[in-house]
Amino acid sequence: MIQLEDLPHGSVTTPRGFRAAGVACGLKKNNALDLALVAAEVPCVAAALFTTNRVQAAPVLYDKRVLAQNASGLRGVVINSGCANACTGEQGVRDAEATAQGAASRLGGQVGDYMVMSTGVIGQHLPMEKILRGIELASGALSADESAGHEAARAIMTTDTRPKEAAVRVHWEGGSCLIAGMAKGSGMIHPQLATMLCLITTDARLTPEVAQQALHQAAEVSLNRVTVDGDTSTNDTALLMASGLAEMPLLAAPQGEAYEAFVQGLKAVMVALAKAIARDGEGASHFIEITVRGAPSEAEAKQVAKAIAHSPLVKTAIYGQDANWGRIVCAAGYSGVPVEPERMRVWLGDLELFREGRPYHVDEVRAKEILAQPDVQITLDLQMGQAEATVWTCDLTHRYIDINAHYRT
Amino acid sequence: MIQLEDLPHGSVTTPRGFRAAGVACGLKKNNALDLALVAAEVPCVAAALFTTNRVQAAPVLYDKRVLAQNASGLRGVVINSGCANACTGEQGVRDAEATAQGAASRLGGQVGDYMVMSTGVIGQHLPMEKILRGIELASGALSADESAGHEAARAIMTTDTRPKEAAVRVHWEGGSCLIAGMAKGSGMIHPQLATMLCLITTDARLTPEVAQQALHQAAEVSLNRVTVDGDTSTNDTALLMASGLAEMPLLAAPQGEAYEAFVQGLKAVMVALAKAIARDGEGASHFIEITVRGAPSEAEAKQVAKAIAHSPLVKTAIYGQDANWGRIVCAAGYSGVPVEPERMRVWLGDLELFREGRPYHVDEVRAKEILAQPDVQITLDLQMGQAEATVWTCDLTHRYIDINAHYRT
Repeated sequence: MIQLEDLPHGSVTTPRGFRAAGVACGLKKNNALDLALVAAEVPCVAAALFTTNRVQAAPVLYDKRVLAQNASGLRGVVINSGCANACTGEQGVRDAEATAQGAASRLGGQVGDYMVMSTGVIGQHLPMEKILRGIELASGALSADESAGHEAARAIMTTDTRPKEAAVRVHWEGGSCLIAGMAKGSGMIHPQLATMLCLITTDARLTPEVAQQALHQAAEVSLNRVTVDGDTSTNDTALLMASGLAEMPLLAAPQGEAYEAFVQGLKAVMVALAKAIARDGEGASHFIEITVRGAPSEAEAKQVAKAIAHSPLVKTAIYGQDANWGRIVCAAGYSGVPVEPERMRVWLGDLELFREGRPYHVDEVRAKEILAQPDVQITLDLQMGQAEATVWTCDLTHRYIDINAHYRT
Repeated sequence: MIQLEDLPHGSVTTPRGFRAAGVACGLKKNNALDLALVAAEVPCVAAALFTTNRVQAAPVLYDKRVLAQNASGLRGVVINSGCANACTGEQGVRDAEATAQGAASRLGGQVGDYMVMSTGVIGQHLPMEKILRGIELASGALSADESAGHEAARAIMTTDTRPKEAAVRVHWEGGSCLIAGMAKGSGMIHPQLATMLCLITTDARLTPEVAQQALHQAAEVSLNRVTVDGDTSTNDTALLMASGLAEMPLLAAPQGEAYEAFVQGLKAVMVALAKAIARDGEGASHFIEITVRGAPSEAEAKQVAKAIAHSPLVKTAIYGQDANWGRIVCAAGYSGVPVEPERMRVWLGDLELFREGRPYHVDEVRAKEILAQPDVQITLDLQMGQAEATVWTCDLTHRYIDINAHYRT
């Protein structure tokens, strides 16, 4: 029997073998935390997913090389906010390497034992003096306390209004392990087979191949199901580090109860992070969960749900607390999936709005009550099959425009 | 030699054989014009493009039937704003027919000699008493004056802040004709092989097949190149009515100088309307023209340009007059076209911002000056081929949110 135990106070230091720190090194104004360091006590198995954007930031280019060469010996990761180190040419890649070298000099090992992630403005070079000073500070502050993980989660925020963390303990017959994660989200959020910045730590014992497979599987139903504004970033990275210090047999194949347990735990952590990202999307006043069921396939359910999640008209209507279901039906119609309007049913919360091509006795008073809540559930039944998928997003508000009209200044 | 003469005061009544009227029948508040009638003195050749949304409004379903059965005998079109007659089931189709029947009763001919278009709120039934009263009023007001066409253009507006009209005279060796058009745009604008509402009148003599081919060809580089918010409407319709009263030989095949002349004129009218739609997009403070050149194919050039035009981050940056070129490069990167960042060049107006993977000496003062203008030109050279495409859009502003958060109320 697989059991998941939620650890509400957990952080990336909860799994055995990890220390963390979050410090301020001057990349952000007002002495805000802007550099996180997560270090492992033992070489870790690593798995990662990266942005599918053709324009890939220097840290992505660098990390891909590290992953290809050293998927069993990762010692740590440096994550900075305030500067994305994207569109920075060869100098950018040298700066990413120098960041990793800075960590190696302080903590031991080789440059290739460390990964880096960056988030912030595109097209500016990393101020390396500040970065190296930040690594020095963070190395001195490293701690296995859960609070140190919380500091790291704060240091990777950009326009996020709160840190995003999740942790679980997974039990199964034959073993148990801890899985934790942190992420930054907020804007330019529309991961494609990868994500915003996300770091998962675990003490599970598993091979690089199993780690990669599990990460891929969990990302597909978590980070790949969230969108804020449909913009896929140049820096998206999801990294899994596994210390192998848990009491469990080595997971050497992606099957069996232990693998299922690990993937369940990983999904729980990553779904929690994905939902936290949608809930804290730039300027969000509503968290929106869109479930499409009765689809011919899961891919098509996701496609319809994403079309609705991307629609600025749906998102502004929910901001305005207007039950404008016509925009939901319209978005499903142009999703590319051959939906049949005369079969489709649409609910807002538990209130049916649309049935078989026609409005279904819409109770506008009840609709207003539902939309006055911060969490909104939209459900479609396509009545074309058995598959379903859920996607998370947020509304489109005046505050999103405020934030993004003057992001660089 | 083909010559185009712009007719700045023209309207849909400029080509020979058309009368028009715009009246108020109570669909909109404050006695605003909300019903347009355009009637032909002779049976017209018709061609049309419709939304590719799977959810198609009743007038679209009805018009498709008319076009299939009667592409040489169209007598007129009734266009109402204030109610889209979409998601209204069989009653909706009956209402569309009754609207056409209303026009036939007043103006002669059969129900199938008239088309209808509707725009406005989705999911409400047409108030047929008002519609029929509007048709009665409009029938009495029909006039061939250009000013009557201007009234019609006002009557089809929804959140448009101004009417959208264009007209040209086309001369070639062997003949000449007049082409005019009107359109409504503003929100839910992302035509896919079709468009928002657009009516083109012409006195050219041509067969239905030639008319359909020419309309398709012109729409591809005009209405299909504009986006406001990426939402493809349920009601998009572009209708061409040709009276055949011009002095020219019958155009019976889509080739030769006369055909080229007609298509040039049609493109001029439709490009002008497309640009007017982008310029008057909901809440727009900037008109944005995006040209992608050096692409392997025109389709790929368009795909990259559309990705940039859809990016809320690019659109809010331009609203904020922030030369955040990183967002432009990022959007090109996730467009799905395998762009190569290290070859790409990006300009804002005449100012080069990005070259071969790196910022190119960005003059921020000059960039601010360029973005202080209402018209913004973004140019990308992918340096991968010879093809190019231009797309038009507008910025994303606080006003867009204002308009769409409470559209129904």
